[in-house]
Amino acid sequence: MSMVFITRKERFNAAHRLFRPEYSDEQNLKVFGKCSNPNWHGHNYTLHVTVKGEISEKTGFVTNLKELSRIINEKVILPLDHRNINLEVAFMKGKLASTENLAISIWQELEGEISGLGATLYCIKVEETENNMAEYFGE
Amino acid sequence: MSMVFITRKERFNAAHRLFRPEYSDEQNLKVFGKCSNPNWHGHNYTLHVTVKGEISEKTGFVTNLKELSRIINEKVILPLDHRNINLEVAFMKGKLASTENLAISIWQELEGEISGLGATLYCIKVEETENNMAEYFGE
Amino acid sequence: MSMVFITRKERFNAAHRLFRPEYSDEQNLKVFGKCSNPNWHGHNYTLHVTVKGEISEKTGFVTNLKELSRIINEKVILPLDHRNINLEVAFMKGKLASTENLAISIWQELEGEISGLGATLYCIKVEETENNMAEYFGE
Amino acid sequence: MSMVFITRKERFNAAHRLFRPEYSDEQNLKVFGKCSNPNWHGHNYTLHVTVKGEISEKTGFVTNLKELSRIINEKVILPLDHRNINLEVAFMKGKLASTENLAISIWQELEGEISGLGATLYCIKVEETENNMAEYFGE
Amino acid sequence: MSMVFITRKERFNAAHRLFRPEYSDEQNLKVFGKCSNPNWHGHNYTLHVTVKGEISEKTGFVTNLKELSRIINEKVILPLDHRNINLEVAFMKGKLASTENLAISIWQELEGEISGLGATLYCIKVEETENNMAEYFGE
Amino acid sequence: MSMVFITRKERFNAAHRLFRPEYSDEQNLKVFGKCSNPNWHGHNYTLHVTVKGEISEKTGFVTNLKELSRIINEKVILPLDHRNINLEVAFMKGKLASTENLAISIWQELEGEISGLGATLYCIKVEETENNMAEYFGE
Repeated sequence: MSMVFITRKERFNAAHRLFRPEYSDEQNLKVFGKCSNPNWHGHNYTLHVTVKGEISEKTGFVTNLKELSRIINEKVILPLDHRNINLEVAFMKGKLASTENLAISIWQELEGEISGLGATLYCIKVEETENNMAEYFGE
Repeated sequence: MSMVFITRKERFNAAHRLFRPEYSDEQNLKVFGKCSNPNWHGHNYTLHVTVKGEISEKTGFVTNLKELSRIINEKVILPLDHRNINLEVAFMKGKLASTENLAISIWQELEGEISGLGATLYCIKVEETENNMAEYFGE
Repeated sequence: MSMVFITRKERFNAAHRLFRPEYSDEQNLKVFGKCSNPNWHGHNYTLHVTVKGEISEKTGFVTNLKELSRIINEKVILPLDHRNINLEVAFMKGKLASTENLAISIWQELEGEISGLGATLYCIKVEETENNMAEYFGE
Repeated sequence: MSMVFITRKERFNAAHRLFRPEYSDEQNLKVFGKCSNPNWHGHNYTLHVTVKGEISEKTGFVTNLKELSRIINEKVILPLDHRNINLEVAFMKGKLASTENLAISIWQELEGEISGLGATLYCIKVEETENNMAEYFGE
Repeated sequence: MSMVFITRKERFNAAHRLFRPEYSDEQNLKVFGKCSNPNWHGHNYTLHVTVKGEISEKTGFVTNLKELSRIINEKVILPLDHRNINLEVAFMKGKLASTENLAISIWQELEGEISGLGATLYCIKVEETENNMAEYFGE
Repeated sequence: MSMVFITRKERFNAAHRLFRPEYSDEQNLKVFGKCSNPNWHGHNYTLHVTVKGEISEKTGFVTNLKELSRIINEKVILPLDHRNINLEVAFMKGKLASTENLAISIWQELEGEISGLGATLYCIKVEETENNMAEYFGE
């Protein structure tokens, strides 16, 4: 049987701030630069979810992309879109709101749901700007 | 003499909120939807500044793009980038932080500076997401 | 008062064929090339709808983009998406399924609805591929 | 010696339908959604062909990209472009016209030809829309 | 009758240098910056040619895009692609190789040919990088 | 601990020529096509640098992207941007100026510097045009 990789792209717009609460604003500025602005800033994030699996003989699909999109939207986009990542997103509570941590936390939200679709989560890619992105492969 | 239009594209990432301070959160939600989130959200904005003018015989340019870029950065990108548009941007004070108002306010910041370059500001285009944008031609 | 132009981008995927029913397949091939394939071909179309108007003091908007998007989806995307433009789209019946005719027909579908939003339809742009597009300004 | 990966991007526009001939239209609609439309729909597909190999000392190339492009066009783009994938493409006969099956079938068409260029086929990526894509690595 | 605008996008890759031959390298550096490098640099240029006209009842086209593309390639892309704009392009001889001058010169090469297609040249847009572009409307 | 991959995208515009000095222009034309033009041509290159590493508990980063960007600019972009790759770039001296060799040479320039950031260089991707690119993984 052949292994095929399927990627679904979704988007969310959110505010965030990079900072450690125990630091002063000056210390945060030194470590995190303008991303530490106490008044927040934000991004149009792009999320790429890649799953792998064998093709179903019945459908020609690794997995139904509508189902995959529904799960990503329910578990990840709905909690993140038009939100403040630091203040309002349960799965980011207590974590630094970096692109790296977003990728790992989104993996954790999706891994179980996707195995329920008969496929295996392979990669979470989060693009913060057109120049910066993080990828996590679950290891 | 020939009239040529030159466009320079710049980017800024910012937080904002659409709301009227005299409304309750419920009223704001009804009018502005999820864009009224009191905890802010944000975007990667793209700004296109178009100027028009005749070509200088000496340089082959309508205007020096490095100069144009420097002015846009000083007057517009520096105050907006990694900022909260509602709280921190002097030229947006007291205005609804819509894409439309951003376009008009950026025009007002740049018009005089650009005429100092020997060119005429023609259009300000602000893209908030890949699907939504506003253009203002100064009228 | 200031006039601002707002653009909303939407997408649809459709099949079509360029041909005249009174021509033979050979004649159609000669005039329309591979676009005349009797078994159809298709595209991911991108639609840009530009409206103009004055900014509402209450909302900071020319028009509510969610309302604009809802109207475009109801009147244009729903009838076109995942459809055969020649066989299934009422507003293209009896017309050559060219990008030009799509732009004009989409204008006709949207013009009245958009004036109901308090804005004026300004331009319909239809991109058939990344290299080919048509724009119609209602004249 | 160093292993380098080279990717060539090509495009084709085609019509297709997702369905099982033994199902009724209602059953197909239930399984495949609007992609099962009996009147077809279509896409601007993007194809990325990645080959790997060592760099030739004579040319500095892994493989001549003009040759690679010629082979992809002859074997894959010519049969697919402006065609109906279900009805007219020999290498898709009897297969569900999913992005997954396209990726595997394109691999099979290209693998032998590319080894004739002194390189090894590494990945076939097919983008159906900007949000959906399939990748196949030959295993 | 309705006026529709059609745009065809083509590409060329070329080397150039911005300089005045009567200046020293130091003077050129002062006026043109790093674009004056005597050893040349280069770009992937994108050219957008917009024509306007009424739709032919016979074809549904303003003009045949294959014909338009053939003319652009013969008159503009072939002389520019993989060339040195300063040294090898007849229609740029003796002109500063700026994006502005490219736009005007390409207009002059195409205007007559396009009127032979029954359409009117409306705009030449030349993108030098993703951030810089020039547009010329023939006036 | 989790391994995350971070990619930073930078750009440079340069002239080059593909040729062997011991060949005649005719021989070079036969092997390298129009890329062998003795008067040079050029491109807007896009460079993607991917590094991998564990997330710092202190910062939430694999590595500080500002530092990474500074290193890429100092070691790679500054020597390449607005330059002639064959004549002016020390780390390309005596090498064929192919995309493949660029990828390997950029790897060699960056590998040591990036390990100084506490991360590991994983992939260098160089895009010469939107259709052609090379990737090198250090092996």
